[in-house]
Amino acid sequence: MRTQVGIIGAGPSGLMLSHMLHLEGIESVIIERSAQEHVQSRLRAGVLEQGTVEMMRSLGLGERIGQFGLEQHSIDFRFGGESHPINFHEATQGRSAWVYPQHEVVKDLMAARTATDAQMLFETPVTAIDGIDGPRPVVRYEKDGVPGELHCDFVVGCDGFRGISRHAIPANGSLVHERIYPFGWLGILADAAPATNEVTWGCHEDGFAMMSIRTKSITRLYLQCAPDENPDNWSDDRIWSELHKRLDVPGLPPINEGRITQKGVTAMRSFLFEPMQHGRLFLAGDAAHIVPPTGAKGLNSAMADVKVLARALEQHYRRSADDLLESYSRTCLKRMWLVQRFSAGLCTMVHSFDGDSSFIKRLQRADLEYMTGTHAGRLQFSENFTGLPIDA
Amino acid sequence: MRTQVGIIGAGPSGLMLSHMLHLEGIESVIIERSAQEHVQSRLRAGVLEQGTVEMMRSLGLGERIGQFGLEQHSIDFRFGGESHPINFHEATQGRSAWVYPQHEVVKDLMAARTATDAQMLFETPVTAIDGIDGPRPVVRYEKDGVPGELHCDFVVGCDGFRGISRHAIPANGSLVHERIYPFGWLGILADAAPATNEVTWGCHEDGFAMMSIRTKSITRLYLQCAPDENPDNWSDDRIWSELHKRLDVPGLPPINEGRITQKGVTAMRSFLFEPMQHGRLFLAGDAAHIVPPTGAKGLNSAMADVKVLARALEQHYRRSADDLLESYSRTCLKRMWLVQRFSAGLCTMVHSFDGDSSFIKRLQRADLEYMTGTHAGRLQFSENFTGLPIDA
Repeated sequence: MRTQVGIIGAGPSGLMLSHMLHLEGIESVIIERSAQEHVQSRLRAGVLEQGTVEMMRSLGLGERIGQFGLEQHSIDFRFGGESHPINFHEATQGRSAWVYPQHEVVKDLMAARTATDAQMLFETPVTAIDGIDGPRPVVRYEKDGVPGELHCDFVVGCDGFRGISRHAIPANGSLVHERIYPFGWLGILADAAPATNEVTWGCHEDGFAMMSIRTKSITRLYLQCAPDENPDNWSDDRIWSELHKRLDVPGLPPINEGRITQKGVTAMRSFLFEPMQHGRLFLAGDAAHIVPPTGAKGLNSAMADVKVLARALEQHYRRSADDLLESYSRTCLKRMWLVQRFSAGLCTMVHSFDGDSSFIKRLQRADLEYMTGTHAGRLQFSENFTGLPIDA
Repeated sequence: MRTQVGIIGAGPSGLMLSHMLHLEGIESVIIERSAQEHVQSRLRAGVLEQGTVEMMRSLGLGERIGQFGLEQHSIDFRFGGESHPINFHEATQGRSAWVYPQHEVVKDLMAARTATDAQMLFETPVTAIDGIDGPRPVVRYEKDGVPGELHCDFVVGCDGFRGISRHAIPANGSLVHERIYPFGWLGILADAAPATNEVTWGCHEDGFAMMSIRTKSITRLYLQCAPDENPDNWSDDRIWSELHKRLDVPGLPPINEGRITQKGVTAMRSFLFEPMQHGRLFLAGDAAHIVPPTGAKGLNSAMADVKVLARALEQHYRRSADDLLESYSRTCLKRMWLVQRFSAGLCTMVHSFDGDSSFIKRLQRADLEYMTGTHAGRLQFSENFTGLPIDA
């Protein structure tokens, strides 16, 4: 098989890149190890930056976001028994965030790609990526037990943190930066109406909690727990009592209880691999970087990479200029380190860390007070939360 | 001896409080363990916030600051081989900072107090503070080997971190918050013209350095070193070569070398004691809190305490109302935790920490880039550096 751009992974970044290239007349093939139904049903992050929504809209993919997405203008931080909302819409003079789950983004992109006769191979694990130092790289895969080859001009690894692509970049000359957090999130889906229209963060001494919104009658809730927590240790009673303790404040409606339909634990890490390119292989999204979910930056950062890469590939094919391709990693990492900074900083600010001194705990509280209580603090949070500019 | 307010310590906060009370017709006595010449010659911090200068001016003590103080509008942060100045004057729409050494502040205050016949006992160590739970506390001291007693309505501890006052507050019910940093500053005074008019911070992987300004022909310089460093390990050659490495950047004048006239090592800590009051005893400045020198907040925070306390004592004597006295600690600590946050955050951002992971080192760089490279980052630095509002 032969194409211009071989894309490994049919998650949001692979699909988005493939679609953007298609609109520019550049051919691509997506190779995905899982089944299509599995890809479309993976539950992941649920908050889109202003820039991500603008990208979707500019490609004609904004319809369902407009219909089902919940535009957000503020977040309520709760600590010290009080509500401290930040209106990021106001602070950024009009930028928003949207509650719109990742699997809906995938659904929109998949529909767009299917309608344009995309070449997508599902249930097709990649076994090797060869020749990335030369002009004609090859992606080797196995389909129904039969080996196959995809010959292409460029290979793009959109295959996530556990994917194969990153490992095709020689260790010599590359760097791994990582931080593992000493806690995880117990995620809960409940048949209960969200208590308010705002995503609510409980920054409690006993641990972080979050109330997010799935639909008018379904609430998504998170509780800080051990990184290797067994969800079975969390009875419904314990879950609701911890949620009330960490999230409720006097004078505002308490969170609503309801039937718990899903329970799962996510570990938390910050990870960054550099460079994000080698020869004719490029990494995008989780394949190169992971953030803790606190700032909701995972999907959005992947989309930022794709925007830079699509522009660079377009320049290559349209104007035979490779400077944007050559600076791809540098361009993405410049923004990504600021995103890592925001995500790690926020993660550290809202969680409770066992063994922290009273000095550190009080500084953490002062950080929350400064962020929510001053113009400069709110501005900093808001411009990061709604999305830093993408240099593409 | 009998007075209204007994003040322990003739540093800037003790003198300032005594002078402010005097102007309100409230009598005080200052008891200081050291000799007057010693107090006046102690070299300390050298940057005044806008609010501190305004306090001095409003009391008629701004003349010599106007004459000898160097009004600053910006700081130059140097990292990655480049200059990243923050114009805090512009960011705060007109607020400044002044390079004006602490011993000059003491000189101004001492002159003002001497001219108004202040009662000051020097070389008079305090041996005990009694009766603070009742209406008539007593400060016991020893003058020339002879015990004496100062009977007063209130006692104010302005006797610094190593003073006796803090220890008069019962441990039961009080809290100590502390962080010791794994480095110190080697401070150098050199007969050399400052290379620029801006205080310059070198945030280098090998350690922090700072170039500050004493006069047109004297430079004050600092180098990050071990907390227990022996200054003798630092030859002049080593000092200048480290200063050049950490501070110079291409395209800007290198620091000027000159005869080194003073060398000393300062250890670094964050410390906070709460509450800052008990009965009729009040703590101000270093007696209650210490910050690392990075943000130049020590003297300025002491002045903020004094402003709050003077107002509260005035209210007590003028209007027989004690609510401001009762809320003194709460009022000061609310601001002080934000100051601790700024000082500790900046200290962590600009120094190099042995053993930090590459992830943390890169986040540190991203912090510097965000602070100097974005409007919100510059605003946050600037409003803290020029001084947060004082709630008095």
